[in-house]
Amino acid sequence: MGLFSKDIKSMEDLFVHGLQDIYYAEKQITKALPKMIEQATNRDLSANFRAHLEETEKQIERLEKVFAKLGKTPSGTHCPAIDGLIEEADQTAGEVDDKAVLDAALVAAAQAVEHYEICRYGTLIAWAEELGHDEVVRFLTTNLNEEKAADTKLNTVALRKGVNRKAVA
Amino acid sequence: MGLFSKDIKSMEDLFVHGLQDIYYAEKQITKALPKMIEQATNRDLSANFRAHLEETEKQIERLEKVFAKLGKTPSGTHCPAIDGLIEEADQTAGEVDDKAVLDAALVAAAQAVEHYEICRYGTLIAWAEELGHDEVVRFLTTNLNEEKAADTKLNTVALRKGVNRKAVA
Repeated sequence: MGLFSKDIKSMEDLFVHGLQDIYYAEKQITKALPKMIEQATNRDLSANFRAHLEETEKQIERLEKVFAKLGKTPSGTHCPAIDGLIEEADQTAGEVDDKAVLDAALVAAAQAVEHYEICRYGTLIAWAEELGHDEVVRFLTTNLNEEKAADTKLNTVALRKGVNRKAVA
Repeated sequence: MGLFSKDIKSMEDLFVHGLQDIYYAEKQITKALPKMIEQATNRDLSANFRAHLEETEKQIERLEKVFAKLGKTPSGTHCPAIDGLIEEADQTAGEVDDKAVLDAALVAAAQAVEHYEICRYGTLIAWAEELGHDEVVRFLTTNLNEEKAADTKLNTVALRKGVNRKAVA
């Protein structure tokens, strides 16, 4: 969508714009996760990031199916939100001078990204339902549920697998 | 915190950095909301934004109490995440050429901001508990609960107060 041009004329346009936004976001996440996997010291955390990278690749495929169902070519649109979330994760990680504290920072950064996605998928599902795009709701709901599960797993890593406790020690 | 310097040496430093991040974010939100109030056409939506602006000002005061309890001067740190979320809201709103569709876009933008805050407060509460800062958990929990309630109210505006339905009509 062109900046400063009023290209979104209908709810359908807004929905497609939202899909392009999350498609771009998921792709940026696949680029950011390898660095986070390298940075993580806690084994449960790096395993979590590796699993989520695989999951994200499948989510991108699901989004491509959504575009196909709607007769659109998959494409991304610049998404300053995910860029900001990833930039913030990078900046904060760059300022941390302790491996255990860095793990805690990485969990926080990943959860901020998960929450962004949970929110966007929730919105897209509501819009798809309102527009009668029942054929794509299933794909979006699978992605939403995976993001929610990823967030819950990160809670477990932080609280029960010792990331926060070791960071304070 | 200086860019590229390793200023975060302990979990306590990371916690204070997180407080500065959300303090900056809340302040940016008070700057962004007046424009969103002007842009909103749906009365329930503009009323929601007005109420949330007042709420946000109280949340900032609560964060100032948190800084005081910790013996720190309240200060913000640049937060690319909230800047990105607000920039994306602005850009998308600028591309929408229909008032009813703009309302739906505004709800989505506001919910993305709410989710960011819900996530950050959740993290800060977990860190405060781990650090034994029981005296500030109450303030952070109040803010968290308000953000969750704000998100739920936006769901109601979108789904039951007709924002999404009118956007599709």
